[in-house]
Amino acid sequence: MTSVELIQKKRDGGALSAAEVAQFVSRFVAGEVADYQMSAMLMAMFLRGMSDGETVALMEAMLHSGKVLTLPGVDGPKVDKHSTGGVGDKVSICLAPLVAACGVFVPMVSGRGLGHTGGTVDKLQSIPGFRTDLDEKAFERVVRETGACLIGQTDEIAPADKRIYALRDVTGTVESIPLIVASILSKKLAEGIDGLVLDVKVGRGAFMKDLKSARQLARALVRVGTRAGKKVVALLTSMQSPLGRCVGNALEIREAIDVLRGEGPEDVVACTLALGREMLLLGRVAKTAREAEAKLSAALRDGSAARSMERIIAAQGGDPRVVSDTSRLPSAPVTTEVLAARRGFVTGIDAREIGLCAVALGAGRLRAEEKIDPAVGIEILAKPGDAVERGQPLARLYLRSAAIETGERVARAFAIGARRPAKQNLVLERITARSK
Amino acid sequence: MTSVELIQKKRDGGALSAAEVAQFVSRFVAGEVADYQMSAMLMAMFLRGMSDGETVALMEAMLHSGKVLTLPGVDGPKVDKHSTGGVGDKVSICLAPLVAACGVFVPMVSGRGLGHTGGTVDKLQSIPGFRTDLDEKAFERVVRETGACLIGQTDEIAPADKRIYALRDVTGTVESIPLIVASILSKKLAEGIDGLVLDVKVGRGAFMKDLKSARQLARALVRVGTRAGKKVVALLTSMQSPLGRCVGNALEIREAIDVLRGEGPEDVVACTLALGREMLLLGRVAKTAREAEAKLSAALRDGSAARSMERIIAAQGGDPRVVSDTSRLPSAPVTTEVLAARRGFVTGIDAREIGLCAVALGAGRLRAEEKIDPAVGIEILAKPGDAVERGQPLARLYLRSAAIETGERVARAFAIGARRPAKQNLVLERITARSK
Repeated sequence: MTSVELIQKKRDGGALSAAEVAQFVSRFVAGEVADYQMSAMLMAMFLRGMSDGETVALMEAMLHSGKVLTLPGVDGPKVDKHSTGGVGDKVSICLAPLVAACGVFVPMVSGRGLGHTGGTVDKLQSIPGFRTDLDEKAFERVVRETGACLIGQTDEIAPADKRIYALRDVTGTVESIPLIVASILSKKLAEGIDGLVLDVKVGRGAFMKDLKSARQLARALVRVGTRAGKKVVALLTSMQSPLGRCVGNALEIREAIDVLRGEGPEDVVACTLALGREMLLLGRVAKTAREAEAKLSAALRDGSAARSMERIIAAQGGDPRVVSDTSRLPSAPVTTEVLAARRGFVTGIDAREIGLCAVALGAGRLRAEEKIDPAVGIEILAKPGDAVERGQPLARLYLRSAAIETGERVARAFAIGARRPAKQNLVLERITARSK
Repeated sequence: MTSVELIQKKRDGGALSAAEVAQFVSRFVAGEVADYQMSAMLMAMFLRGMSDGETVALMEAMLHSGKVLTLPGVDGPKVDKHSTGGVGDKVSICLAPLVAACGVFVPMVSGRGLGHTGGTVDKLQSIPGFRTDLDEKAFERVVRETGACLIGQTDEIAPADKRIYALRDVTGTVESIPLIVASILSKKLAEGIDGLVLDVKVGRGAFMKDLKSARQLARALVRVGTRAGKKVVALLTSMQSPLGRCVGNALEIREAIDVLRGEGPEDVVACTLALGREMLLLGRVAKTAREAEAKLSAALRDGSAARSMERIIAAQGGDPRVVSDTSRLPSAPVTTEVLAARRGFVTGIDAREIGLCAVALGAGRLRAEEKIDPAVGIEILAKPGDAVERGQPLARLYLRSAAIETGERVARAFAIGARRPAKQNLVLERITARSK
């Protein structure tokens, strides 16, 4: 079929065969399908939907447009985690060393921050000397020697996804579950993993605002990933309020180190343990959830998780002393506190607003080419459920220079009510290949 | 709204305001909306459909992307006809001089042939010296002095439509009624007309294969054209078998001249009179259909239609003597006849096949850049309903050189059965602004 006929087939509600999807993508990569043809196809895929078979085919076509690692030198279970993105989500940085300390290899390729959500690569780069641009050989070596390696997306991984995503971004074809699934999995499956744990965030600070759409995405990710031959589990976790207390790059590294030293805020620890448990189970280093939890807790308690973090930082060129001395991380020259305007209970903190305030301070970017400031950010001093007096600090801003307007905006992100809110669950649902 | 937000609005089933449609098109013309964004919008328009309001807005945005004639020097009713395209459809060439002879001005901008259907401009260019590339001033002068002028599409008329159509052609977004309506009307309304008669062809040789879809298109054309302030009527006419006897450029001019001299095949005459009647009524030079028919018949009978044709040809630089002497038209060096393989009645002639055979002989083009041969073509010697003996000629091919395969293909386009088929109506339906 010609490329136009393939577009017409999808447009008219037909199901494309795996060979047809592969052909369309390979013609796009070869320059025989123009951008305007791909964007018409993407809109047809968006509006007509895609079967799991089509989604697997698209994912594999994008995956095989680039280099697919196999990590032959890494002898053991290889499991990664992917989050759909939230505010204050530093869990990858806690998980990789912790899970590696428990015997599962974690080859992790992460993205940069964009919009109100931060990116793991940006956060890691606030560690002095830390390099996220290792080549394939170095990546494999660090995984083998330390149990984990955390690098950024390269041009060699799923280049077709990169071009297609850039088109989707400017043609109104982002919010399609099959297209999102194919995009996420094409990048993750290039890492050479056996299993993948997905953290699908739900709430106003997340891409998926409600439980129903998040569940749809999680189920599709698990179905398609499983169909592609991987062990895949997803957790739906809440992203109404920011995760933890810190939003901003060096601040989040500090908080992640707190977690690895057996400290850290309750919600970040809970999220780390919940996802870590799944990674240990997929990696078969624990037979039961209870056994997995015991291993993870021991690694946090006995210092092996923190040692694992030091080894990874050192192997990636960074200063491992930050783990025992977080004052070695970049720090902001100015801090200011945001105060409660009334007495009551914090009933919620708008994660999206806090994320956008952090961007306004310089901790993130709205456009891919913007630079970020590693030191700035927001520390939340009163979490949902906490009682506050009028004039009590709600948050501390870490600034390059005074920023009055952002302070007021941060204050408005806090909802304060007369009654203590009910405690919200962090982990909302667990989706496996057997979930209906 | 940003361009991406406009695409998203349409994608999600929202109705774009006239201002939003105009903004999107003007950004496209200005290069601020890229081709890949327009094609995503077109696919969303295709799949979500468009209200009449949106269609009018798109039509007017494309219309005003170029020059819109007003013909201030032409004092009188100005009415044009547009056909959705068929095989052997030379009716424009009969109508313009005939209707002009009855007192209605006909400023006609036509297209070239593409695919199995021929184009009025190509046909006219087979008249020695005839120019279809007149500028605006000359066009107005010829309309004023002779009553009609027939030129080709220029780069100044609806350039946005030209670019959008080229995109639709390669992105699977052609077969959308609102997009077709906006495209047709944006070009026709640039002519400075008061009224428009539409000939929507139905059948295997037409763009619309069945009555239902043709009726939808006709109704949409009438509704949208009326909403844009024009007097619009549509006829649905049959395009199962070729119209008339001749297919090919000079051959069709010869047949059109036959009609203007009061001769010509019954179906071409019937189609010309049916459409001409509507043009006279829209132009208010006749109060009733009967009066309109009487005027048209008189003009064919008394020679005024043929004289009108001579004046138009002369005014456009052509040799007017072709009207009284069609042997001055280009003629093919070789002719050959296609014979009936069996005795019976011609029950049908596949118009599309005949059109494609004419293209194969060189009378048309499959791609816009191909050249055509004015002299070649096909003359149908046995029309549907005619009895034929075995070995009797069904068609005569006019050739540049012998073409055996095409002869066999032409023969196969004739269906011959044992019984005389029922006579088919040529005009199937009439659609006005008051039609439900």
